[in-house]
Amino acid sequence: MAWHFAVMLDPAASDDPRTSFADTFTEVDPAAPALSVGELSTQRGDGIFESIGVVDGHAQEVEPHLERLAHSAAICDLPVPHLAQWREAIALAADRCGAGEAVIKLILSRGVEHGPAPTAWVTAAPAADNSRVRVDGVRVVTLDRGIDSAAAARAPWLLLGAKTLSYAVNMAAIREAKRRGADDAVFVSSDGMLFEAPTASVILRIGDLFVTPAPTGSILRGTTQMSAFAWLDAQGLVTEYRDVPASALPRADAAWLVSSVRLAAPVVSVDGAAIPVDADLTRRMNEYLLGPRD
Amino acid sequence: MAWHFAVMLDPAASDDPRTSFADTFTEVDPAAPALSVGELSTQRGDGIFESIGVVDGHAQEVEPHLERLAHSAAICDLPVPHLAQWREAIALAADRCGAGEAVIKLILSRGVEHGPAPTAWVTAAPAADNSRVRVDGVRVVTLDRGIDSAAAARAPWLLLGAKTLSYAVNMAAIREAKRRGADDAVFVSSDGMLFEAPTASVILRIGDLFVTPAPTGSILRGTTQMSAFAWLDAQGLVTEYRDVPASALPRADAAWLVSSVRLAAPVVSVDGAAIPVDADLTRRMNEYLLGPRD
Repeated sequence: MAWHFAVMLDPAASDDPRTSFADTFTEVDPAAPALSVGELSTQRGDGIFESIGVVDGHAQEVEPHLERLAHSAAICDLPVPHLAQWREAIALAADRCGAGEAVIKLILSRGVEHGPAPTAWVTAAPAADNSRVRVDGVRVVTLDRGIDSAAAARAPWLLLGAKTLSYAVNMAAIREAKRRGADDAVFVSSDGMLFEAPTASVILRIGDLFVTPAPTGSILRGTTQMSAFAWLDAQGLVTEYRDVPASALPRADAAWLVSSVRLAAPVVSVDGAAIPVDADLTRRMNEYLLGPRD
Repeated sequence: MAWHFAVMLDPAASDDPRTSFADTFTEVDPAAPALSVGELSTQRGDGIFESIGVVDGHAQEVEPHLERLAHSAAICDLPVPHLAQWREAIALAADRCGAGEAVIKLILSRGVEHGPAPTAWVTAAPAADNSRVRVDGVRVVTLDRGIDSAAAARAPWLLLGAKTLSYAVNMAAIREAKRRGADDAVFVSSDGMLFEAPTASVILRIGDLFVTPAPTGSILRGTTQMSAFAWLDAQGLVTEYRDVPASALPRADAAWLVSSVRLAAPVVSVDGAAIPVDADLTRRMNEYLLGPRD
């Protein structure tokens, strides 16, 4: 795999006002050993992350990603991330990305077992070519997430609103989708509500209304979904957060999986049954999402 | 943290009959960088593990741990672990442990992102001193696991029977237990059935019967629980796997959390209410568990 950049962040960076965190960064070879076997990120998936899209050296929606990082840290009882330090590391990474599309990842691990502090790093790598999937779309299958839609409120230790490193189930869901001849999955609650895709948010068009499941704690706040909603609003279209029954997806007038790197992938079928695709709106939405966004 | 040993396993070890895998092992400094930032274990918690207790250089119940590793690999669509190679690495690690109690960890990660093969390693480190907790016991709180007891059967992509590296929720549950003034948690299903502790199995004594929740896929097969049941059987006591309602725990005549390193910790209270402790049986069970077991 080609890489652009990797840098370790010193968690002990002072909170004093400062103009640069450069002395808290240690650039590492992304292909060389950089983490010890005692890392709780590897042993326990114990940490949080963000994936930020980069287009022609511009990191997209950095502030919403940093806000979500801080939100995830709070849910997981991790130290408050030093956002100015992360922001500077992101800028450094974006500078290395050059032309084209790339992805910057932020990782905040609980640290080394019995260690004194978290481990933090930022990587940048070229993005996969998503130009076809933004046009051809994705066949999705709905998969039971096992939990009901009220679980997040009564059991915050399930960390449902946090973007944790414990993504084994998300990865297994994508494998299951492929086993069924589809491209991706959409999680539904055990009581029949629409949640999210393993690595994307879901937007549906129902008549003239664009809806996405309300981020009530069961799902992640989608940075790209928020960006897409802002664009839809600016087009004079009507958007709404609401509880969405899973049964609405196969009956939608159009649907998209939206995420930071793949951007808007139109859903072409749900559990094997085709749904309409709005090719023109999809194209314009992706044009917007590929432009610089802050 | 003090370490005894760490070794990386070459996943390309030949399946040919061979007398030694020594040339497939690379010993590493456990405190030094050994893993790259592209590791899917760190990025996604995507892999599986085992923790094996070691007493005076004897690794306990190696075969049940290897069987569970293979079972977890199958659930997670990982390559079949080369058990002879793992067995030799465990023997090497156990040799480094010396006198006293230690823990050997096996980790099988899906590998580096877009990489050709899994990453595998074995570590050995001194165990925490668990002598007091085996006598004084643990105060537990019951925590909703969010899923119902039928989820494992209908949604295998939830990986409930696999010991994956995605343990952020398990760690959060232990933090929640401590926040409530307890020592550990016991997960219960959303439909009120007893599951397991975040890092241990649960055994209850109900009258003259020793019961543990049936390993029907919702929980891990407990290697120490199986060992304890074999010992209880040998004492002429009666053991049984069955579905156990969560309401049975606070009414139990005794209960234990059993795991590979802490061994048998008697449960002294459930959600703040004391339950009886069988000090003599607990002492004898731990004496057995501390002896060499294969």
